[in-house]
Amino acid sequence: MNLKIIFRVIGLLMFVEGAFMLFPLIISILYGENDSMGFLISSGINLFAGAIIIWLTRKANRDIGKREGFIIVSLVWVIFSVLGSLPYIFTGAIPGYTDAFFETMSGFSTTGSSILNDIESLSHGILFWRSLTHWLGGMGIIVLSLAILPIFGIGGMQLYIAEVPGPTPDKISPRIRQTAATMWVIYVILTIAETILLWIGEMPLFDAVCHSFATMATGGFSTKQASIAFWPSPFIQYVIILFMFLAGTNFTLTYFTIRGNFKPILKDEEFKYYGFITLGFTFLIFTGLLISTQTGVEEAFRNSLFWVVSIITTTGFGTVDYLLWKPVLVALIFVLFFFGGSAGSTGGGIKIMRMVLLFKNGYYELKRMVHPNAVIPLKFNRHSVDSKIVTNVLAFFVLYFMIFGASTVFFMLFEPNLETAMGAVASCLGNIGPGLGSVGPAENYAHIHPIGKWFLSFLMLLGRLELFTILVLFSPTFWKE
Amino acid sequence: MNLKIIFRVIGLLMFVEGAFMLFPLIISILYGENDSMGFLISSGINLFAGAIIIWLTRKANRDIGKREGFIIVSLVWVIFSVLGSLPYIFTGAIPGYTDAFFETMSGFSTTGSSILNDIESLSHGILFWRSLTHWLGGMGIIVLSLAILPIFGIGGMQLYIAEVPGPTPDKISPRIRQTAATMWVIYVILTIAETILLWIGEMPLFDAVCHSFATMATGGFSTKQASIAFWPSPFIQYVIILFMFLAGTNFTLTYFTIRGNFKPILKDEEFKYYGFITLGFTFLIFTGLLISTQTGVEEAFRNSLFWVVSIITTTGFGTVDYLLWKPVLVALIFVLFFFGGSAGSTGGGIKIMRMVLLFKNGYYELKRMVHPNAVIPLKFNRHSVDSKIVTNVLAFFVLYFMIFGASTVFFMLFEPNLETAMGAVASCLGNIGPGLGSVGPAENYAHIHPIGKWFLSFLMLLGRLELFTILVLFSPTFWKE
Repeated sequence: MNLKIIFRVIGLLMFVEGAFMLFPLIISILYGENDSMGFLISSGINLFAGAIIIWLTRKANRDIGKREGFIIVSLVWVIFSVLGSLPYIFTGAIPGYTDAFFETMSGFSTTGSSILNDIESLSHGILFWRSLTHWLGGMGIIVLSLAILPIFGIGGMQLYIAEVPGPTPDKISPRIRQTAATMWVIYVILTIAETILLWIGEMPLFDAVCHSFATMATGGFSTKQASIAFWPSPFIQYVIILFMFLAGTNFTLTYFTIRGNFKPILKDEEFKYYGFITLGFTFLIFTGLLISTQTGVEEAFRNSLFWVVSIITTTGFGTVDYLLWKPVLVALIFVLFFFGGSAGSTGGGIKIMRMVLLFKNGYYELKRMVHPNAVIPLKFNRHSVDSKIVTNVLAFFVLYFMIFGASTVFFMLFEPNLETAMGAVASCLGNIGPGLGSVGPAENYAHIHPIGKWFLSFLMLLGRLELFTILVLFSPTFWKE
Repeated sequence: MNLKIIFRVIGLLMFVEGAFMLFPLIISILYGENDSMGFLISSGINLFAGAIIIWLTRKANRDIGKREGFIIVSLVWVIFSVLGSLPYIFTGAIPGYTDAFFETMSGFSTTGSSILNDIESLSHGILFWRSLTHWLGGMGIIVLSLAILPIFGIGGMQLYIAEVPGPTPDKISPRIRQTAATMWVIYVILTIAETILLWIGEMPLFDAVCHSFATMATGGFSTKQASIAFWPSPFIQYVIILFMFLAGTNFTLTYFTIRGNFKPILKDEEFKYYGFITLGFTFLIFTGLLISTQTGVEEAFRNSLFWVVSIITTTGFGTVDYLLWKPVLVALIFVLFFFGGSAGSTGGGIKIMRMVLLFKNGYYELKRMVHPNAVIPLKFNRHSVDSKIVTNVLAFFVLYFMIFGASTVFFMLFEPNLETAMGAVASCLGNIGPGLGSVGPAENYAHIHPIGKWFLSFLMLLGRLELFTILVLFSPTFWKE
């Protein structure tokens, strides 16, 4: 184990995070708020400690093997969250460390679950930092899902990448850098586009920036306690729906589409089902709302579409409180908790691509039963899917549900209500935000027991890193030489 | 499609069922009850119609192909339930056909969910028929899981059978007959043994027979509204625990054990985990009960062991109402809803063997991630498991949860309480009996909407026939020739 390089990466992460903390510091100064010192201290600690570690490990061997890779990937989110909580502490915005850590992990994991009871009372600096954690987390996920995880055989994007190179640093570094750079450009372009559109829709620029950060990361932190319900403007809500949907789309497809090549997106099976599922659930909920409530047609449509897109992309922005709907509609929403965005997007959860493969494999299993001697390979985007990938996807689903079940039971030690427990666990594991029961869209996570908050933070990390990345660290095989 | 042989089988089934209806008729006459005519009519209809169909189809070609096999297997349960409801109707015990069908399907599928509000008011004849449907259903499942389904590659027992013959009737008939005969002998011996023990424990002989029928089939119908709580005798309860556990054990293992060969049972991985899981959950719930209630140590142990065995084997007999326990303990019980007995037992649900394979595959997936170039085959009982079986098991789990989710949402159209809906769906799909909420152990299914009852009856059939047997009938591939 090359421990030195791991420490060096920690140092680099601290330095980078310290640098990013200068942004809320600037915001705080610009708005003349009295918490600038909190950001200065947080930033200073990170920059200083990071620099020292970088200097101490300057002679580290640059070889990053597979094992170091797994550890570093996990550490990125842990270190960022452990130290990213400092601004909340030093500005006094969130007094307890448990709460500050929960909020930060929720930010970087692009979950969007909050422990804050009065968001409007926060300073611009804090609100900006909170949204920035989402945006940075989303950036991290893009590199991770498009460039790093496929190398480890995790995350689903290996389906799109014909030839996955071995994890030798000299080979993959240029590839990672190139992919990351291209995708980040799209991420930035879309963020700017959304900001402008929201601003045109008369959302104040500051809120527009923060909401664009949260949208593109499929995060869900808002600058308002009422989330998007604060802006009843249909224009603003449709803009957010559009960009949530884009954020839940494979960024590679968006890249080709922006470059004028529409073939990849039109031929992509995952995108097709992503669209169908979104429209299908919207139709069901829309019909249900028309039958069971007095809401107007456009509003019922907008509310159903908004929530379906918000949940399927694992963003978690809210308009009306879905817990006020008929129970069967809430159940439909809860089913969406287990879908998740597309592979190669910033969305969390199980992901559409996996769901499609699972459905197909179930159906193919029936075919295999009728024709036991025929070889019936599973196809995705017109290519046969390697049976190893199928087993991996199936194992992911099984683990996801086992973790969901076991976590719900454990969580009920602190939160005896079954719906709340299921909702909180599914929401955090899927990086969504709102849940059911007492963690519904109109509520927050402030009242959860501290152990429960740490546990949910762990689930956010687990879900964000596609389970395997974290679980492998707990397996004896990993540590055996 | 050889339709004639299918009709012939229907005729045979009717005739056999009519013959079995003579037993409750005899009971009814012996006890001098006034509903004998109801049994006579039901039996007569079946015997007469059955005989006519058998005579009409006497020239049917005896070739039973794979497709006819699937249809016949499904028809066995459907026909038995459709016509097995007649005694309830003609004796006036259950006036509506929906309720009568639900109760009969619940019997033959060995589920044990009931729509009866006052069981003690029923005649001995009806109570006997009710228990007999369980016992016959259990017998059917033994042939099905040990002899027929492995041929189709369903059910998990293919793991135990090295060489599965093709479905040519001349080859398999002797094999099915031999296996069935051997296993039925064990089934009968165990039923008699339990009856004697319960009788020694001072349960009246009639109740002892009925409860033994329900135990060995892992059914759960009782002759008392209070189920086993009616007999607070620890001896009776431990006897029932023992025989529920045996009924949830692979009958092949029991066969060898009875013949004095202990090797198979001691070496069997599924049995090992079956024991571990039972003890593990009992320990957790026992500890929980000691902490949270005033119950004595022995009673707390007995109550936890009773419910764990009752649920894991999918029997559904009850003592205390688990819904009165702490929510986290109820959640533990609900997790057990998804385990099920062993392959080759009368238990329903997902089955321990599948759960073990799923856990192992999840762990092996982590191993494969660390050593991507190594070939790491999954082992079960020291043999490599064919990857086709692994995919099949994984697909089963995925389908099981998808069906559970979709059914819960659909069921909520009639039953808006989430816990009730989840409990009813999981209970019927897993052939258990009691559920959560308003279908808990102290309640029953009488108040469910008629559509809901038909839907749950379908789920019982689906779960009982290992999903695939039924689902394949709905796939276009099956009907294409």
